[in-house]
Amino acid sequence: MAANSFGRLFRITTFGESHGYGIGVVIDGCPAGLPVDMVFVQQQLDRRRPGQSKIVTQRQESDTAELLSGVYEGRSTGAPIALLIRNANQRSKDYNHLQNAYRPSHADFTYQQKYGLRDHRGGGRSSARETAARVAAGAIAQLLLAHYGITVKAYVSQVGPLVLQTPYQQLNLALTDQNAVRCPHPEMAAQMEALILQVRKAGDTIGGVVNGLIQGVPAGLGEPVFDKLHARLAMAMLGINAAKGFEYGSGFAGAAMRGSEHNDLFYTTPQGNIATRTNFSGGIQGGISNGMDIYFRVAFKPVATILQPQPTVDHLGNDVTIEGKGRHDPCVLPRAVPIVEAMCALVMADFVLLNRCARL
Amino acid sequence: MAANSFGRLFRITTFGESHGYGIGVVIDGCPAGLPVDMVFVQQQLDRRRPGQSKIVTQRQESDTAELLSGVYEGRSTGAPIALLIRNANQRSKDYNHLQNAYRPSHADFTYQQKYGLRDHRGGGRSSARETAARVAAGAIAQLLLAHYGITVKAYVSQVGPLVLQTPYQQLNLALTDQNAVRCPHPEMAAQMEALILQVRKAGDTIGGVVNGLIQGVPAGLGEPVFDKLHARLAMAMLGINAAKGFEYGSGFAGAAMRGSEHNDLFYTTPQGNIATRTNFSGGIQGGISNGMDIYFRVAFKPVATILQPQPTVDHLGNDVTIEGKGRHDPCVLPRAVPIVEAMCALVMADFVLLNRCARL
Amino acid sequence: MAANSFGRLFRITTFGESHGYGIGVVIDGCPAGLPVDMVFVQQQLDRRRPGQSKIVTQRQESDTAELLSGVYEGRSTGAPIALLIRNANQRSKDYNHLQNAYRPSHADFTYQQKYGLRDHRGGGRSSARETAARVAAGAIAQLLLAHYGITVKAYVSQVGPLVLQTPYQQLNLALTDQNAVRCPHPEMAAQMEALILQVRKAGDTIGGVVNGLIQGVPAGLGEPVFDKLHARLAMAMLGINAAKGFEYGSGFAGAAMRGSEHNDLFYTTPQGNIATRTNFSGGIQGGISNGMDIYFRVAFKPVATILQPQPTVDHLGNDVTIEGKGRHDPCVLPRAVPIVEAMCALVMADFVLLNRCARL
Amino acid sequence: MAANSFGRLFRITTFGESHGYGIGVVIDGCPAGLPVDMVFVQQQLDRRRPGQSKIVTQRQESDTAELLSGVYEGRSTGAPIALLIRNANQRSKDYNHLQNAYRPSHADFTYQQKYGLRDHRGGGRSSARETAARVAAGAIAQLLLAHYGITVKAYVSQVGPLVLQTPYQQLNLALTDQNAVRCPHPEMAAQMEALILQVRKAGDTIGGVVNGLIQGVPAGLGEPVFDKLHARLAMAMLGINAAKGFEYGSGFAGAAMRGSEHNDLFYTTPQGNIATRTNFSGGIQGGISNGMDIYFRVAFKPVATILQPQPTVDHLGNDVTIEGKGRHDPCVLPRAVPIVEAMCALVMADFVLLNRCARL
Repeated sequence: MAANSFGRLFRITTFGESHGYGIGVVIDGCPAGLPVDMVFVQQQLDRRRPGQSKIVTQRQESDTAELLSGVYEGRSTGAPIALLIRNANQRSKDYNHLQNAYRPSHADFTYQQKYGLRDHRGGGRSSARETAARVAAGAIAQLLLAHYGITVKAYVSQVGPLVLQTPYQQLNLALTDQNAVRCPHPEMAAQMEALILQVRKAGDTIGGVVNGLIQGVPAGLGEPVFDKLHARLAMAMLGINAAKGFEYGSGFAGAAMRGSEHNDLFYTTPQGNIATRTNFSGGIQGGISNGMDIYFRVAFKPVATILQPQPTVDHLGNDVTIEGKGRHDPCVLPRAVPIVEAMCALVMADFVLLNRCARL
Repeated sequence: MAANSFGRLFRITTFGESHGYGIGVVIDGCPAGLPVDMVFVQQQLDRRRPGQSKIVTQRQESDTAELLSGVYEGRSTGAPIALLIRNANQRSKDYNHLQNAYRPSHADFTYQQKYGLRDHRGGGRSSARETAARVAAGAIAQLLLAHYGITVKAYVSQVGPLVLQTPYQQLNLALTDQNAVRCPHPEMAAQMEALILQVRKAGDTIGGVVNGLIQGVPAGLGEPVFDKLHARLAMAMLGINAAKGFEYGSGFAGAAMRGSEHNDLFYTTPQGNIATRTNFSGGIQGGISNGMDIYFRVAFKPVATILQPQPTVDHLGNDVTIEGKGRHDPCVLPRAVPIVEAMCALVMADFVLLNRCARL
Repeated sequence: MAANSFGRLFRITTFGESHGYGIGVVIDGCPAGLPVDMVFVQQQLDRRRPGQSKIVTQRQESDTAELLSGVYEGRSTGAPIALLIRNANQRSKDYNHLQNAYRPSHADFTYQQKYGLRDHRGGGRSSARETAARVAAGAIAQLLLAHYGITVKAYVSQVGPLVLQTPYQQLNLALTDQNAVRCPHPEMAAQMEALILQVRKAGDTIGGVVNGLIQGVPAGLGEPVFDKLHARLAMAMLGINAAKGFEYGSGFAGAAMRGSEHNDLFYTTPQGNIATRTNFSGGIQGGISNGMDIYFRVAFKPVATILQPQPTVDHLGNDVTIEGKGRHDPCVLPRAVPIVEAMCALVMADFVLLNRCARL
Repeated sequence: MAANSFGRLFRITTFGESHGYGIGVVIDGCPAGLPVDMVFVQQQLDRRRPGQSKIVTQRQESDTAELLSGVYEGRSTGAPIALLIRNANQRSKDYNHLQNAYRPSHADFTYQQKYGLRDHRGGGRSSARETAARVAAGAIAQLLLAHYGITVKAYVSQVGPLVLQTPYQQLNLALTDQNAVRCPHPEMAAQMEALILQVRKAGDTIGGVVNGLIQGVPAGLGEPVFDKLHARLAMAMLGINAAKGFEYGSGFAGAAMRGSEHNDLFYTTPQGNIATRTNFSGGIQGGISNGMDIYFRVAFKPVATILQPQPTVDHLGNDVTIEGKGRHDPCVLPRAVPIVEAMCALVMADFVLLNRCARL
């Protein structure tokens, strides 16, 4: 039921597979009059694309977005904005040996069970390549948010056992893209990079955590019951390939706290605004933004494709051994950063529009 | 945009406030022919209702569900099933002193900002009382799931610093409801109960974690991209009042692992089924169930209402001091268990129906 | 799939059956701050209720709407507005002889085929009684539209062979409710009333047409492709029991015209507004309102229940003869007028809100 | 709000403009395993394409559909099926003189009012060219319906004053595509063709009616309340450019009938099936199919672009005179036939899938 669509008023529908013609997205509901900066869209895609550094997959694809509709003389017209990213540099034969084998912790088995057939090449629709379409659409959402002064930023805060404990307030997020890992703490980034290279050399992969931050959000965004701002964020984040967990504000640590320490006390700022002294709420109360920073964390498991032999079964249940070929990411985290930002922007753009109808 | 509805094919819409006429729910899309066992519905409501033990709020409400429509001679007819739970034992005057004050970490401020007005009595729509409607609807979802051999169970695994480390496989979940905390480990439950009583005595509150478990799920449920099974679960769980985080399978711990240890190797069981030797995937691969157990954890913050004076501001930004009155939960966890089960059942019932359309 | 809901941003969900507890509606998405005038809501229900005149069913039901939620101190809060109308004066035994028979041109057979069981009493969910819930919700939509200066009006323009040819511009629509038929042309109304009484005496029923008129609509409402303003209107009207056809503007007569006569030429009014000299477009061009009056017609078939013996079959396919008992409408038209207005108002309220998001 | 999408389980989203890159469609929800016959898809497009005969626009476009995703080895995989039809043979300069003028009875004025800007070239998004995307998607819906033995057929029954009165049962619909008009009655078709040529010569246009027929429908499709089978059909048909009215079964003529003549009496066929002796119901009772033929009529207004000078205004409200240039249809009816079939197939495919969830 519209399982390839996301959002309500600002709504995207993605299509495409890893080894087919290409992937794409249709954005329905972008307000008319938005300057659509395709240079910015491409920049975001470049941050996600393969081959951008030595710690990601060495597959080379330019991931160039073509604008098919919805923009006239540089501005959105209110019609659907369609973007197409053609596939290139595919090596479908890298997957021939996997036609009938179920790769461990991949979607091969579950797709076969659900649909009765599957496009095994590169994982087909289950490929993380689909997220390029989200990044393109998310970039346009970011352009919309910029009109409201809302910014979304993400960075890597953990790779395997290496955890950046520094709170975001003490980091310079402008440094995030200064290194291949996308961790804004240069020393930690260097350690993370070394670890990823070591893991790659071992033919292995490793997980991690991306932190997200949304700033400039006015009070009032989000809906009270099922569509709480953080509930939609959670769905958006868990909808990213390899995501295993989501927490916002105090998160799981909040479970160990008492109300007297967790409560965020309101006060009036010298400028006359109502703010809170602490922000365990993560900028959201009762599902609705309160004007403070919204921050959250997303856990990612290690990439399932490893360059080591693994026992598994084929579609007949027979034992087989497979070994990853091709060019794969030893760690999904650096490329997950723009995806997290994109999904986050899509959620926020939707809530911005929805909120236009909250009052008479 | 239908912010008070949840689900696609098995879809609920809730209404009502803490101190109004009552609360209710309309279930649209329940297949015809389901025996609707109202005794079971009421049992689930009784597990959520106030006053059920000394570690929850002492407010006394029977939370009796009335069946308004959609059932004829004990079976669902395909028409909407409406359930009404009238309010009783309200003490609206307990909230008079809060008419203009913004309670810390409550939804008072954000509702006022969003809507420009609010029903302050008992939190109005933001009250956790609304979850009774979900529990009633979730019970009917459980009746539907039972037809497919799918069961959902939840239990308390953490209260404040007390963490139950035992994996679910080594617990007897039949013990969950044998104590007031709803922790299936009797010794841990006793410690938790003592802690909650101590916290209550201090006029404070405390958070915790609920674990969830879904068994008997066939392979193939869930959708590949945005509507991954765990993405919908995450949204459902974060849509519960006071929830701060969600993880499934290996969760946040998976972020520290390597692919070679995290991958779940397939094998063929003696019965000829394909299964995995480990289950870090949490029963879901590529967003779709693989037939193994689905398990997850939900973090809850401490209840915001504490019986201690707290400084805050009123609607004019003036400093005021408030102190919780009335009868409140020192810990939301015991009553959260049936809510987690209900939301979980709603997600699964929806996916069961959606999956009927996956293949030709 | 949410088959009992209507609308997108201003969205209603109805529930209830003819002979159960009652019927009701949940309105989700009504903007906060709307004064909810329950006297007006009841007035609209009174225009639809049985027993209001000698040409409608003599069943006596007060159809009193109870407000269950969503309004505080007389204003909508942004929470769902639930309304309940209890059933009364039911005579379920009037239907005992029909338990297994399929009444001609009723929904008995199709419900049985679809669901495998049915509530036969009074038609269950298929009863026109369900439209009372729509009228109540539509009244609230009308209150919202009034804020924008938009009015919706309907009247009877045909009963059987009696057709009112006078265009709406030459009618005084204030006269509509001055007679039992709800035809604003007194002489024609008298003829129609006489015909209905004659038909009733014959134990028969008769069809007719309701005309609708929407005024004060600003240019810009409606969506370009599938959700054209008139497409949603058509769906709304055909969703009313017994409706058989819909046309707007020139309608079916437009099929016989040439472009040179059908085109509505633009001009600038003395007040400086752009208007059209004719209005064959019916106030809608390309699916979007152009600021002119929107007008349309809805055809209704004769009521299926007649007080004459009719041959039919039962659930086993055996021949049986049935004869209508109970108290039924000889002509649905007079009571259809407020239903047409209600559905029309729901469509327009939805488009008003959607249009808030059309531009940056 | 998803205004460019249609359908619920079998759901399409279209994009593209008359004079941009091209137009396209994404089909989400097509069950896996369907053989996707692209030859059939192209045949349907060829029936809609410009330049196919002398009574339609002489614009030459091949309207070739490219399959971008969702099909592997000839079968649908359950992933979104994206189809792209590139634009060709555009003459944007034909529209330069119209950049600021509002063409009578076109969408120029309403788009400008709604969005504040517009792509004037060829009508942009409002161009009937968008319907090619629907025809492509509808062809795939027809492939799905064929699996259930359901067929949809349409034909021209009226051009201007020429009305084909013969009921469909007495027509040989295999003759529909034997003439350029797509009227299955050869003599009437010849008259219609002559009339269209005469109208074209006069630089004028003319309206008409398309009849639709759905056969092989099992009892049980459709939903009871707002989503009645005919309500969705009405929305689908009124969503086609230039459509002005919809009726099914007895339609507007039914308004003049009495219940005793309109009621369709049930009987048991020699084969033991329950059927009705007449079919004024048009195959639908209470919104749900009863197994009889579903038939309906759609009125279309004359094409707005005429090759005659017309007074109008520009965006500043100044009087201007415009005259149609370029290559336009004198009558939309022949090309509307495959569009009506496509939209009809989309509605039915959706209901077929929805009905899988009606019962336990």
